[in-house]
Amino acid sequence: MRLSINRSRLLKLLTIVNVAIGPKSPTPAFLNFKLEMTNGGLVALGSDNDLTIQSYLPIEEDGKVIISDYTCGSTLISAKYLMEIIKRLDGEIVTIEIFDDVIVRISDNKSNFQLNSMKAEEYPDLDLSILGEDVAFKADEFKKIVAQTSFAASTKEIRPILTAINVKATGEGAEFVATDSYRLAKKKIDIFTHPFESNIPVKAVNEVAKLIENEDVVLNISNNKVVFEFGTTKVYSRLINGDFPKTSRMIPNSYPYNLQVNGAKFINAMQRVSLLAVERERIVKLSLSDQGVEVSSKSEQVGSANEAIDLYEYEGGRFDISFNVDYVTDAIRAVQSEDVILSFAGEMNAFRVTAVGDDSIVQIITPVRNYY
Amino acid sequence: MRLSINRSRLLKLLTIVNVAIGPKSPTPAFLNFKLEMTNGGLVALGSDNDLTIQSYLPIEEDGKVIISDYTCGSTLISAKYLMEIIKRLDGEIVTIEIFDDVIVRISDNKSNFQLNSMKAEEYPDLDLSILGEDVAFKADEFKKIVAQTSFAASTKEIRPILTAINVKATGEGAEFVATDSYRLAKKKIDIFTHPFESNIPVKAVNEVAKLIENEDVVLNISNNKVVFEFGTTKVYSRLINGDFPKTSRMIPNSYPYNLQVNGAKFINAMQRVSLLAVERERIVKLSLSDQGVEVSSKSEQVGSANEAIDLYEYEGGRFDISFNVDYVTDAIRAVQSEDVILSFAGEMNAFRVTAVGDDSIVQIITPVRNYY
Repeated sequence: MRLSINRSRLLKLLTIVNVAIGPKSPTPAFLNFKLEMTNGGLVALGSDNDLTIQSYLPIEEDGKVIISDYTCGSTLISAKYLMEIIKRLDGEIVTIEIFDDVIVRISDNKSNFQLNSMKAEEYPDLDLSILGEDVAFKADEFKKIVAQTSFAASTKEIRPILTAINVKATGEGAEFVATDSYRLAKKKIDIFTHPFESNIPVKAVNEVAKLIENEDVVLNISNNKVVFEFGTTKVYSRLINGDFPKTSRMIPNSYPYNLQVNGAKFINAMQRVSLLAVERERIVKLSLSDQGVEVSSKSEQVGSANEAIDLYEYEGGRFDISFNVDYVTDAIRAVQSEDVILSFAGEMNAFRVTAVGDDSIVQIITPVRNYY
Repeated sequence: MRLSINRSRLLKLLTIVNVAIGPKSPTPAFLNFKLEMTNGGLVALGSDNDLTIQSYLPIEEDGKVIISDYTCGSTLISAKYLMEIIKRLDGEIVTIEIFDDVIVRISDNKSNFQLNSMKAEEYPDLDLSILGEDVAFKADEFKKIVAQTSFAASTKEIRPILTAINVKATGEGAEFVATDSYRLAKKKIDIFTHPFESNIPVKAVNEVAKLIENEDVVLNISNNKVVFEFGTTKVYSRLINGDFPKTSRMIPNSYPYNLQVNGAKFINAMQRVSLLAVERERIVKLSLSDQGVEVSSKSEQVGSANEAIDLYEYEGGRFDISFNVDYVTDAIRAVQSEDVILSFAGEMNAFRVTAVGDDSIVQIITPVRNYY
């Protein structure tokens, strides 16, 4: 195997594939890029066994040569060192060449690197088949779904099912739901596809949303895996087994207290007041009445803070509720609307954050007990 | 004590003084700003006992009112919370008012904070006398001296004297020297002052260099402390007791091998090659001969790297030396010259980095044993 390749294009290819490679692995081969030079172009693959990314660069693109002087073949090269080397090299063209099966020479006009490498056959077998039906999304649409839901998933591995986004298509539309059991984000979209339900790891979804630029992304979900395809890249992820919690139980049926505010101003007021929420970290109290709307916090140790919200509409009687500022901040940001509605069912009931004029996205948050 | 004050000017004042306040202290008072409102203006002070910064804001500046509606007095307010509050408030004007001696109310038009505070009398007595003779520096000159020397001081407290910059004025000039015992930076300046020698903590010198903008800085060194005065700010630091090492012993007398290179290109080549310096971390080898100049590294585990330096002048025979890339990078950057001269006395002798055409700054580095 041998090739001379445009350095910045190679760096972009490796950067994409490197997303799937972890810093450690019980399987040393997974710390490598699998590179395969074919007559069509260079195929790069990285994996940590759960997430696999494959991408490729053609020999020519729009009549411009990207890869030249090549011979076909494949190899495994340390992802960490190859990334660093390709980043730091100065030259426009880089040459990669395998000697004696297990030494790879990487060079531009000035610098020479000899890396110990491994034979491609030592890479674990991965199932890269694509068996399910395709569902296509526009890049913006996919990114918005992810931004509005994925933050609400759990980051803890104790209940793996909560690290997934639950996707449920009924034939008449689809719902994306994420919850860490303290809060929940639910997004409905109009998409007409075959009915299915899957639990996609939030990690995979987040990485795909970061990697796509303006290309459409095609989701292909089969029994045990999902494949995201965009441009010349395929991202493979296992699905998470198990039943996603019945989240409809978390959502109240009626909301007697309804507050409409400017989202950004409300976030700023909460964040300021929360500075003194020390013993009960990040917890503030919202006090609603016909007289006004106020956020406040109190700490024995440090002091107290309060701020009146000046532009608002409120329906309902006198009502106090305490909650984690960061959960409410995330929810307000996620609904992506200048004005937002906070709807309350009772002091100890979950409450809802929605956008004015967009019922496709709902955020649900569990409050905490009022502490003063 | 009460005052209404321009928020952004207050934030700037507190940010300066906050530099001296550590995150922890055995003396709780040191976690506070000491604020004193006088008829002249607001004086703010912060200290960790070793380093003390005092600064002040006048009532008016260039005919513009900065502080209004004030009554004199003093108080101690939590540095951490006051900084955060003043940063986050929205209003242009902030009001600070003491109630019942130990509660401070901070407010703008919207937000109210009540902080538990302490009486000013609870602050430890600090010696803020200024007794020595003044030595004045231009801002740029002072910043350059610090940038060229301070990085070479030790960051470890095992030998406190090595965490100082040694300043020695002879009446005919002055020398600034810093060393961590593996490398040394020495800067000579033409300054005509009374003879003295002091060991100034590098921390104080670095903080002053960061704080000064374009104002002259006046150093005032007495027996046990140094005061830096610039604008309306005074920075007090203890000096470090003990004898600074006789650094002249570290510096060879003659250099038979002399290499002149472009500093930036040499740094890039070393940094690239050092990527594979794994077992002997950050160590590269420089090989000099009439045939050429090369930097290289070798690792059993990972592989090897080499790069020819293309533009150079060399005098001396065949010669190899190994060193820490970061020490040489720091030294080349510190001499602040496009072309630099590396002068070698022998494989196991310290070597020198100097600028072409500027003998005021000398960097000395200890090599390591060649390992291949």
